[in-house]
Amino acid sequence: MGNLRDQLKAAIEDGRLAPGMRLPSSRDARKLFGVARNTMAEVYEQLLNEGYVVARHGSGTFVADTLPKALQPATSTHSPARRLNPFWLQPEVTAAMGFWRETAPHSPTSSTASIDLRPALVDARLFPFDVLRRVSSKQLRSLERKTARNKSPQGNQGNFHLRRAITNHIAVTRAVACHADDVVVTSGAQQAFDLLARVLVTAHDAIVAVEDPGYPPMRVAFAAAGAKLVPVGIDAEGLIVDAIPANATVICLCPSHQFPIGVSMSARRRHALIEFARRNNAVIVEDDYDGEFRFGGSPLAALRAHEASDVVFYVGTFSKCMLPSLRLGFIIAPDWARRALVAAKNCLDWHCSMPIQLGVAAFIAEGHLAHHVRRMRRVYQQRRQLLMETLDKDFSRWLDAIPSHYGIHISAAATTELDLERATETLARNNIQLHTFSRYYLGPPTRHGLIFGLGATGQSDLRRALAALQQTLRYPGRGPASHLRRTDCW
Amino acid sequence: MGNLRDQLKAAIEDGRLAPGMRLPSSRDARKLFGVARNTMAEVYEQLLNEGYVVARHGSGTFVADTLPKALQPATSTHSPARRLNPFWLQPEVTAAMGFWRETAPHSPTSSTASIDLRPALVDARLFPFDVLRRVSSKQLRSLERKTARNKSPQGNQGNFHLRRAITNHIAVTRAVACHADDVVVTSGAQQAFDLLARVLVTAHDAIVAVEDPGYPPMRVAFAAAGAKLVPVGIDAEGLIVDAIPANATVICLCPSHQFPIGVSMSARRRHALIEFARRNNAVIVEDDYDGEFRFGGSPLAALRAHEASDVVFYVGTFSKCMLPSLRLGFIIAPDWARRALVAAKNCLDWHCSMPIQLGVAAFIAEGHLAHHVRRMRRVYQQRRQLLMETLDKDFSRWLDAIPSHYGIHISAAATTELDLERATETLARNNIQLHTFSRYYLGPPTRHGLIFGLGATGQSDLRRALAALQQTLRYPGRGPASHLRRTDCW
Repeated sequence: MGNLRDQLKAAIEDGRLAPGMRLPSSRDARKLFGVARNTMAEVYEQLLNEGYVVARHGSGTFVADTLPKALQPATSTHSPARRLNPFWLQPEVTAAMGFWRETAPHSPTSSTASIDLRPALVDARLFPFDVLRRVSSKQLRSLERKTARNKSPQGNQGNFHLRRAITNHIAVTRAVACHADDVVVTSGAQQAFDLLARVLVTAHDAIVAVEDPGYPPMRVAFAAAGAKLVPVGIDAEGLIVDAIPANATVICLCPSHQFPIGVSMSARRRHALIEFARRNNAVIVEDDYDGEFRFGGSPLAALRAHEASDVVFYVGTFSKCMLPSLRLGFIIAPDWARRALVAAKNCLDWHCSMPIQLGVAAFIAEGHLAHHVRRMRRVYQQRRQLLMETLDKDFSRWLDAIPSHYGIHISAAATTELDLERATETLARNNIQLHTFSRYYLGPPTRHGLIFGLGATGQSDLRRALAALQQTLRYPGRGPASHLRRTDCW
Repeated sequence: MGNLRDQLKAAIEDGRLAPGMRLPSSRDARKLFGVARNTMAEVYEQLLNEGYVVARHGSGTFVADTLPKALQPATSTHSPARRLNPFWLQPEVTAAMGFWRETAPHSPTSSTASIDLRPALVDARLFPFDVLRRVSSKQLRSLERKTARNKSPQGNQGNFHLRRAITNHIAVTRAVACHADDVVVTSGAQQAFDLLARVLVTAHDAIVAVEDPGYPPMRVAFAAAGAKLVPVGIDAEGLIVDAIPANATVICLCPSHQFPIGVSMSARRRHALIEFARRNNAVIVEDDYDGEFRFGGSPLAALRAHEASDVVFYVGTFSKCMLPSLRLGFIIAPDWARRALVAAKNCLDWHCSMPIQLGVAAFIAEGHLAHHVRRMRRVYQQRRQLLMETLDKDFSRWLDAIPSHYGIHISAAATTELDLERATETLARNNIQLHTFSRYYLGPPTRHGLIFGLGATGQSDLRRALAALQQTLRYPGRGPASHLRRTDCW
């Protein structure tokens, strides 16, 4: 009873129960608070005595308009906050994880809609939500009226076989040959990285080599597990294998479509990397985040070929080929690591949400994913073409597009001295989000350029954004928004 | 091209492409493998030369019936397995996480359906799947055709406000007063424990006190983060606060419905615990896994009252009041810890799956959860009553039910020398799953008894299971299945 009284007092003190609000009658008390009518009446009596509520004859009990002076909380030397693991409070962690947040606040005066050219977004406007809803509902109906049991941490199997669907999907799109037993289903690629970090990083022992520039959220997962991150540069052939420290135990990279630069790793480097791993008892984490979207070039370029299946952890995701909001990805893991990975996944969250697993399994098995990927490949191809032509035609003074055969972003290196940070800030004030290379570096930036993410932006917005960028690069000294709004296609 | 050839060879070698199977024509190669027709023809030519495939004139290319002698893989001293974090390979971890697995293989000759009296299961046969599907679809439709962005790691907000729905839900069912800002949405309680462990356990510094007996998967999460677990006993008043070591930094417990014994913590102990936490700069993790189901007794018994909001992390879950397969739960966290928790959740998996968050938010907001909880409270109450009456009437020689006002399991202490392990093994061979206390102990078991989970078993099955248990306790020496099948209601 005392507890209920205190809860109500607290709710009144902090305004959740507003002054003048009518409280439930004591007759409804059992239903609402699980207490007897008499108990409730007693609580109201006390609150009345203490001045928290007022009674109006015949119409009930109301929150008082003027509250009693609340007791000050007892001062205390209690400081549980120092119990927190300081890792999570580092500004670097916030920066790395906040990597998709806005680069600058939107201009309050601007009426233009936002144009988002950040990488790793997708065009959800073109996603067949109705199809996913339909196949999900069908699957869920067939599962109903069964006793709920906790499912396999590794991912769904049996009649609704997500792991088998995944092997079929990557066999066709990426020529990665594996069995359903090799697959561990995860909540997106991010959980895959976290899971791998927790299984592969042994306490203060692991040197993890990462591409620089690279994907910051992956680094956070490994750093959180206690790894020491060593940045390794990239060139036109991808990760510079000779620069990997010999004591690296894990090497993380995106060999098909380096993030964010976009190069594909050469066959020579791939061989050298696998050799390195074998020689040094190291393992490789291959992040293949958008390998479904290939545009010409040499096909079948997953590092995790059959011959390397003992040293490569292949990480895939449905965030790019479907939707990031589903939070579904997977690891193709070597035999020797599976037991540990499954035990860790079990501890992390038992398993991924069943409705999502079932829906995606059906979406793949019934051919909708293949269809959607084919469609989006055409859409993204048109955007790529527009971008490449415009860069070539209008930006050759400043930027040089970096060839890339995969994915939904294209990077361009600066060919002259440019204040790209200032340029992107100017654009951000005009609601155009565009990233420079700089935020993807762990060490000091060695290259400068812009990343054009094509996932979330149609051709007309892309044209407008490129026109605005051209203006900004041409007149770097000018005030931003006013100029842009005056001159062109806004 | 070499890569495709090798993939195909590997698939043929390990049987995924079966002998005699027809391979796609080189005309279809671009669609299936993303390579030109000529490239595919070349690959087939090579496989033909190497004996992996045969060509039948006019009908295509087929996997050879007899394979060439494959090259032995190069022997190597490579042993990446020693890179694994040994934590995950400990048998204790497997045992603790495998805690819902079958206690014994089903009898292959038994034709009876399984009766599952393990704790922490729910009756999904009574879940309104159609309602959840309907409200989810409605929510999802309204979100479509918008650009997908990565959502708040803390949990969904805005128009589809899961966090606000959660605060309303626990205000009504548990009288926990909090703001939506205090809520961090997680993939079930298990991810909440993992998240708390990663934020609260500072390297090799944290002593974590856990109830003994207690919930093993929670312990694994803290142990995985490097904590030293200290088992603390319980008695009729719940956790024995005086037995907590003074250097404990985190105390984990289920104060409303101790798992698995079932006692509620007394008010005296609650005060002592909060005092202990304040005095020692420790924090409390309150696991309130089935607090929605209260049956008489004093209400409003969450430890995380307003006054203790600075030291208590309240963990709730939708696994018991809805379905475990959704994987949705939450933490109500003190202000000072929120930033770290959100950063960690971000690193773990960005955020929980949006379709699930939206569906559950609507399910709560439209009153379906309250309705379902009311309905299931009646259902579980009938089962509780049947169990209590039967224990009282037929089991008083052996067992003494432990009073409990919450939840969907009831425990009973052995009042005499009984070989309960043998009894439950006998039942398991007859497809009746029933747990003893023993597997929930971290230290040596100090009490012996049985846990009757009522979530997944209706009254008629419950009656049958209790009859079988009675027989087993009465004739402990007898052979199991034959006896049970001969005599009664099988």
